[in-house]
Amino acid sequence: MSKLHVEFPAAAMYTDGSRTADWQAAAKRAHDQLHGRSGPGQEWLGWLDPPSPDDEETRRIAEAAEEIRARADALLVIGIGGSYAGARAAIELLTPPFSSQLPREQRKGPDVYFLGQNLSASYINSVLSILADKDVEINVVSKSGTTTEPALALRIAREWMIKKYGRQEAATRIIATTDRTQGALRRFAESEGWRMLAVPADVGGRYSVLTAAGLLPMSVAGLKIGEMLLGAQEASVEYAMPDLDANGCYRYAVWRNELYRQGKQIELLAAYEPAFCAFAEWWKQLFGESEGKDGKGIFPAAAQFSTDLHSLGQYIQDGPRHMFETVLWVELTGSELLVPFIEEDPDGLNYLTGKSVCEVNEQAYRGTIEAHQDGKVPNLLLTLAQLDERHVGHLFYFFEKACALSGYLLGVNPFDQPGVEAYKGKMFKLLGKPGWTV
Amino acid sequence: MSKLHVEFPAAAMYTDGSRTADWQAAAKRAHDQLHGRSGPGQEWLGWLDPPSPDDEETRRIAEAAEEIRARADALLVIGIGGSYAGARAAIELLTPPFSSQLPREQRKGPDVYFLGQNLSASYINSVLSILADKDVEINVVSKSGTTTEPALALRIAREWMIKKYGRQEAATRIIATTDRTQGALRRFAESEGWRMLAVPADVGGRYSVLTAAGLLPMSVAGLKIGEMLLGAQEASVEYAMPDLDANGCYRYAVWRNELYRQGKQIELLAAYEPAFCAFAEWWKQLFGESEGKDGKGIFPAAAQFSTDLHSLGQYIQDGPRHMFETVLWVELTGSELLVPFIEEDPDGLNYLTGKSVCEVNEQAYRGTIEAHQDGKVPNLLLTLAQLDERHVGHLFYFFEKACALSGYLLGVNPFDQPGVEAYKGKMFKLLGKPGWTV
Repeated sequence: MSKLHVEFPAAAMYTDGSRTADWQAAAKRAHDQLHGRSGPGQEWLGWLDPPSPDDEETRRIAEAAEEIRARADALLVIGIGGSYAGARAAIELLTPPFSSQLPREQRKGPDVYFLGQNLSASYINSVLSILADKDVEINVVSKSGTTTEPALALRIAREWMIKKYGRQEAATRIIATTDRTQGALRRFAESEGWRMLAVPADVGGRYSVLTAAGLLPMSVAGLKIGEMLLGAQEASVEYAMPDLDANGCYRYAVWRNELYRQGKQIELLAAYEPAFCAFAEWWKQLFGESEGKDGKGIFPAAAQFSTDLHSLGQYIQDGPRHMFETVLWVELTGSELLVPFIEEDPDGLNYLTGKSVCEVNEQAYRGTIEAHQDGKVPNLLLTLAQLDERHVGHLFYFFEKACALSGYLLGVNPFDQPGVEAYKGKMFKLLGKPGWTV
Repeated sequence: MSKLHVEFPAAAMYTDGSRTADWQAAAKRAHDQLHGRSGPGQEWLGWLDPPSPDDEETRRIAEAAEEIRARADALLVIGIGGSYAGARAAIELLTPPFSSQLPREQRKGPDVYFLGQNLSASYINSVLSILADKDVEINVVSKSGTTTEPALALRIAREWMIKKYGRQEAATRIIATTDRTQGALRRFAESEGWRMLAVPADVGGRYSVLTAAGLLPMSVAGLKIGEMLLGAQEASVEYAMPDLDANGCYRYAVWRNELYRQGKQIELLAAYEPAFCAFAEWWKQLFGESEGKDGKGIFPAAAQFSTDLHSLGQYIQDGPRHMFETVLWVELTGSELLVPFIEEDPDGLNYLTGKSVCEVNEQAYRGTIEAHQDGKVPNLLLTLAQLDERHVGHLFYFFEKACALSGYLLGVNPFDQPGVEAYKGKMFKLLGKPGWTV
């Protein structure tokens, strides 16, 4: 049994069966490019074979995490983009909401806070004031060490740590996740005496969730990273063959490209648990940055259902037909909560008495699929049997590989991001950075 | 001086000047429909004249909030859609992040938690477990009282309150915001002896942020609702005239309709402070639900910059040219935080030494506008001089009125939401609700 059930209801895949053979051939070509390491961005395929739970690097990550868990109330993770989104996604998916407000013994581990993902002074000040009374360790995540947002946050946080702990102890409380051999952050860490973990040179930021970039913060937060890697390894085996009929990951990649050719321009990732909110942000970066280039690409958007059925629901149902949905459903959310009975039935809900909230959520999910199909919004259903590390590791890999294949099908390099430099150049000029006059 | 500066850089409004007169005429017609209360949805215009800080209803709201502030550590707001999004938007904009983790004396007021906006059992359980040791009051917000999500949450929360406080005291700790004369929630509240506040019958959910639906939770959280209403009143005067040259709100409505006709299908609301995240959700409902019908409407999406410049940035810069941006910028964020100097300049950031983080954020903002204009993404800039209740009240009204006018320009009824019923009917059938066989 796969950890992820992939289902295309109402035969929404490629309505004209005549294109099936073409898509199979295209998927085979893309697959060969990927596994033959012969396509654009071929130097960025380190994620294709997920690390093992028993690898030396995995053990080093787990050991570093254990040290931090023993010493700290809070971990401050400094990073942006792929050095931020994956860790946050996994932690929010697998940690109860509001758990930072619970007593330490009821939590899975130290709180994880994020810094360096924006340039908001009020945000930075708020985080530091919350940390004032806590035992803090820092994990700075950056391949280069020169990206403005995290580098600036690191300067501020380092100075704050030195004030709090003194120079010597502060240095023992910072761990840098960076390139194995080069870069400004590696040199900085060496000169300061910080511990270090490595991001493989052949893994780009948005594909780095299952490297130290994502795994250290997850492990500090109490997530079972060995299970997560096992889930990814199982997925890598399951999605290793080019045959579309046997490969749900590739079918998803083909399906979205077929819909794109049919004029669908927006993909909505919809989940029925609010815990998927940060995961959707990770997904938006993965697909948006991989495919949004050369004037092409599906716009990645996200929704939380049933919340947003009372917000975007009207638009999805009756607006322009330029959208399709990828729906995440979790079968067991691990919580029994029943609808209470009230004799007078003041709200007409007594017909639900004895049903669980999960069952009501499930029928909202099934009803919405029917309603959106009636409204001509194609739906893909991705079902996880439960929400744990093994399943989430599978899901990360599923989307990474689908995105790589999808980018090749679209005819772009899914591993570069030339457009991200545009605002940086303009900003450097405005800030008076030496040498920037663009 | 307006509280909101509206700027169309690079003359992005309607590039072909010949259409200016047509748009002026169309705006005049829409304006007359709105103010003459003669257009579609004319029975839903109660928001057009914002209440005064001195109104009796405003005073009742403020008094109820004071009582709750005196008695409670936490307010649980039960609502969905417009009975949820506005309060959350304002509170997150005007309360420092993570403030629920600060000691009570450092906070503006009781924590506000939201329930009934989803069907997630694990979310509901988490909220209730956080509240176990707190003094709790409940504000249930629903016009009808029969919407599944909040009605179900109310049943659960009511039972939980009765267990915690006993039936009699629980009843004194619940306040219902509902229709003034009718509906299931009004009858329920009467039979239980709950206090009540009214949502005017002529204001729909997504336009209700400046009624008791939004104002009570805001006031409990310590926001100055009188100032917010003043800001809205100022805006209602400023945007009362149909002349486009003098009315930035109408120019915005025209601009987005012109771009829509030119083929732009996605509007991205981008802000440079993470506090705007929930505000963007309010905005997405306002525009998505008002305009997404009859096969028409711009897809409302949101981004947090500079965070998402490392995520969606690539897509915005180089993807399909079917998008425009509405950018929110706050001039004074009220926080001085300087870039520290490091002798060895390990990250090449010494050129920023002595600059504030706010200045760096500002140049990211200016640089991004230039970069996106180079990339043919039309930009509208909305600048708030500062982030306080007066300015936020202005901003709420600005978008509400722009949305109403924009809907009329688009040729839809901006005040109905027929498509929201579709999933409900399917769900009711699946849940076995008597009488539903659709």
